[in-house]
Amino acid sequence: METQRAHGYNITIRAEYSNRIGMLGKVTSLIGEMGGDIGAVDLAFSSRDNIVRDITVRVRDNHHAQEIVRDLKKALGVRVINLSDATFLAHLGGKIEIHSKIPLKTRNDLSLVYTPGVGRVSMAIHDDPKAVWNLTSKGNTVAVVTDGTAVLGLGDIGPAAALPVMEGKALLFKELAGVDAWPICLDTKDPDAIVETVLQLSPGFGGVNLEDISAPRCFYIEEQLRERMDIPVFHDDQHGTAVVALAALTNSLRLVKKHIDEIKGVMVGAGAGGVATAKILVSAGMKNLLVFDREGIIHRGRSYGTNPGKTWLAQHTNPDNLTGNLAQAMEGADLFIGLSGPGVVTTEHVKRMNTDAIVFAMANPDPEIYPEEVESYVRIMATGRSDYPNQVNNALCFPGLFRGVLDVRARQINEEMKLAAARAIASTVAASELNEEYIMQGRPDLSGCQGSGACPEPKP
Amino acid sequence: METQRAHGYNITIRAEYSNRIGMLGKVTSLIGEMGGDIGAVDLAFSSRDNIVRDITVRVRDNHHAQEIVRDLKKALGVRVINLSDATFLAHLGGKIEIHSKIPLKTRNDLSLVYTPGVGRVSMAIHDDPKAVWNLTSKGNTVAVVTDGTAVLGLGDIGPAAALPVMEGKALLFKELAGVDAWPICLDTKDPDAIVETVLQLSPGFGGVNLEDISAPRCFYIEEQLRERMDIPVFHDDQHGTAVVALAALTNSLRLVKKHIDEIKGVMVGAGAGGVATAKILVSAGMKNLLVFDREGIIHRGRSYGTNPGKTWLAQHTNPDNLTGNLAQAMEGADLFIGLSGPGVVTTEHVKRMNTDAIVFAMANPDPEIYPEEVESYVRIMATGRSDYPNQVNNALCFPGLFRGVLDVRARQINEEMKLAAARAIASTVAASELNEEYIMQGRPDLSGCQGSGACPEPKP
Repeated sequence: METQRAHGYNITIRAEYSNRIGMLGKVTSLIGEMGGDIGAVDLAFSSRDNIVRDITVRVRDNHHAQEIVRDLKKALGVRVINLSDATFLAHLGGKIEIHSKIPLKTRNDLSLVYTPGVGRVSMAIHDDPKAVWNLTSKGNTVAVVTDGTAVLGLGDIGPAAALPVMEGKALLFKELAGVDAWPICLDTKDPDAIVETVLQLSPGFGGVNLEDISAPRCFYIEEQLRERMDIPVFHDDQHGTAVVALAALTNSLRLVKKHIDEIKGVMVGAGAGGVATAKILVSAGMKNLLVFDREGIIHRGRSYGTNPGKTWLAQHTNPDNLTGNLAQAMEGADLFIGLSGPGVVTTEHVKRMNTDAIVFAMANPDPEIYPEEVESYVRIMATGRSDYPNQVNNALCFPGLFRGVLDVRARQINEEMKLAAARAIASTVAASELNEEYIMQGRPDLSGCQGSGACPEPKP
Repeated sequence: METQRAHGYNITIRAEYSNRIGMLGKVTSLIGEMGGDIGAVDLAFSSRDNIVRDITVRVRDNHHAQEIVRDLKKALGVRVINLSDATFLAHLGGKIEIHSKIPLKTRNDLSLVYTPGVGRVSMAIHDDPKAVWNLTSKGNTVAVVTDGTAVLGLGDIGPAAALPVMEGKALLFKELAGVDAWPICLDTKDPDAIVETVLQLSPGFGGVNLEDISAPRCFYIEEQLRERMDIPVFHDDQHGTAVVALAALTNSLRLVKKHIDEIKGVMVGAGAGGVATAKILVSAGMKNLLVFDREGIIHRGRSYGTNPGKTWLAQHTNPDNLTGNLAQAMEGADLFIGLSGPGVVTTEHVKRMNTDAIVFAMANPDPEIYPEEVESYVRIMATGRSDYPNQVNNALCFPGLFRGVLDVRARQINEEMKLAAARAIASTVAASELNEEYIMQGRPDLSGCQGSGACPEPKP
């Protein structure tokens, strides 16, 4: 079971062995028997005595890779010259770079893009501040800002370790929506310092995408920036998650023929994603929603201190002010949304749900419960993973949302815009295509992209 | 005389006039008589009655352009449909963009550059912080930071108006040295706020290029960042200017066969560029240097308050603690360096200099004195302008200097590195090429660049 669940990745083994007939068969057979999925096999060097091949193998994890290497050595006497990992090789030197839009070949080019020509452009902006949107890259540029405190499922790993994720985000911004984004990884966890820093660096950017900042700090930071900045700010972990969850729910409800204002929903997780998802569900008309944090159902009999998210939830969800455990709450529920961690919900819980149950187990990389554990009891099952049907993926939202926001020079991203984004994402699945295993595209449409730079420019 | 001095720029006039034989001759003659230099003439539209042409004309300035348009209308009845400016057209949408180094075509690409693949890369950096230099773009990336307080010769025009200049800088970084630089224009003038902000955003960058920050704030900001940051910081207006000035002086002294420790130097300007240039000249061995600010010669009988630059100058220049005016100081001087503004030095001053006088009038765009005013009295004359021989241009320094700094992962840029950079720049003019009108390349070598992206990658 564990094998099936792993995403896996590619390694390339540079293997040297005796140049004897039948050796390649033995090597590949052994790798296959050990569960390695062989891709390309290239010849690197060959002599009368020895042969060197690069064998690319999809493995489950690092432990699996080491086992294969060990057995190749032990059982077949293969010499492993090098073991390389495609993911790390792809990351060498980073994933993004700057590109000039203007050729620099002559002295005339130099005086056009730099002094003295640029001086007139600067003065034009000084005289008419709005001109910065047309005469610079501001209008197409987003700062991807993190403090590295809540990176993927990895937690507080710091700003430097967060950089590969932010570069990945910047890459998706460009390739999927033609937006220029640059990572800003901040070496502070102080919410006020983060706010001041983002305010200060905002003149050069057309928008700010906050990323992987832990709750409840993220609420305060976004709120302050919304109030004080003249460009839009969007905390993807909150609102990106909320938008794609609502899109997934919209199509699920079409399938099961229920209405959002009639269903009972149960959510586990009241962090950044949970609060924003609850808010958008309420905005979209959901009336009966119970949200659990670590201490149980959020209701109006508890104190939530300075956590504005939970305070909001206490006021706007759980209309009957229920208490109790998850097993009780799941009784007759139409929808379960997990935005917490693996194992918080069991098969027994899911069995208690209403007919045509919908389960979104969105914890990443390990969902609250795996599809195969509940397949007999639910009608629609979605996760955040790419190796199961119905992947609910933020990458469906943030590039296109910022494309639209920049194109209309929006100053804020409001609730109506998020609801519209959810409708737009849901509508990419045609009625004729919609079924229990295809409520979402699962991943962004890559068909328009030919890799770096060739993604069609958005129309203004 | 004024005509000759102007850099000029290209405009394109879309002109409609009667389709009669001889009209184009009249139109182009009139433009020529008015001093417009005609480039391309394109046919945009033609009917039996009318003809529309796009005429590209090099003009001196905006006033000149308006005069030509007015006379075309008045004298020839031409209808000017549109007047466009090549510099502004080139700046539409900005000059730089992000580029992905990795194609994004398949679901596999997506899991390689983003989750789940990127998670292993992040954890590798978390486990070994040095790995950020190899596994991200940090090692090739420079933040170009300004607060917009001293932009070119334009002064305190603010962070948004400074953005085109910073984009130009980023473009030169990439095209001339393969360095990825992104502009950070700060909406604060508070030196401590600037320091804190740069410290906070430093994890994602391999170096910081401070730009166009006014003196004396720039000294404090750079000093603080040098002490507190683990990546190199370089204030181009100080040290870039100093390096190229020393390079120019090195080659000039070769020509006039004088030694730096024997000459008498006079400098006007004790701002960012002046202080740094004085420091590098002293480091390079100059003993007799007099520096003027607005109040006269800097000496040990005045108080310089909290200005660390002038305090340093008082201690390390003017060995005889002289006072007096510029005319007196210029008596017998071998070298004059202007880093101030137009008109501070006169022909009468220059006449008092020693034989084989060297004058660097580096104020931009208008030098302290024009070459034609002193050509009979100096042996070597340099300016910051591209339309005279011997352009002393910072663009000769900062891209290559940061290339080297990033390649060796330097933590600081020290005086020895700046002296080495000056020697390297001077050495690009071969002994056989060196003459009074060619002491510097004048502009960076563009021959290796084929425009965007095709500039050869530096070797690690």
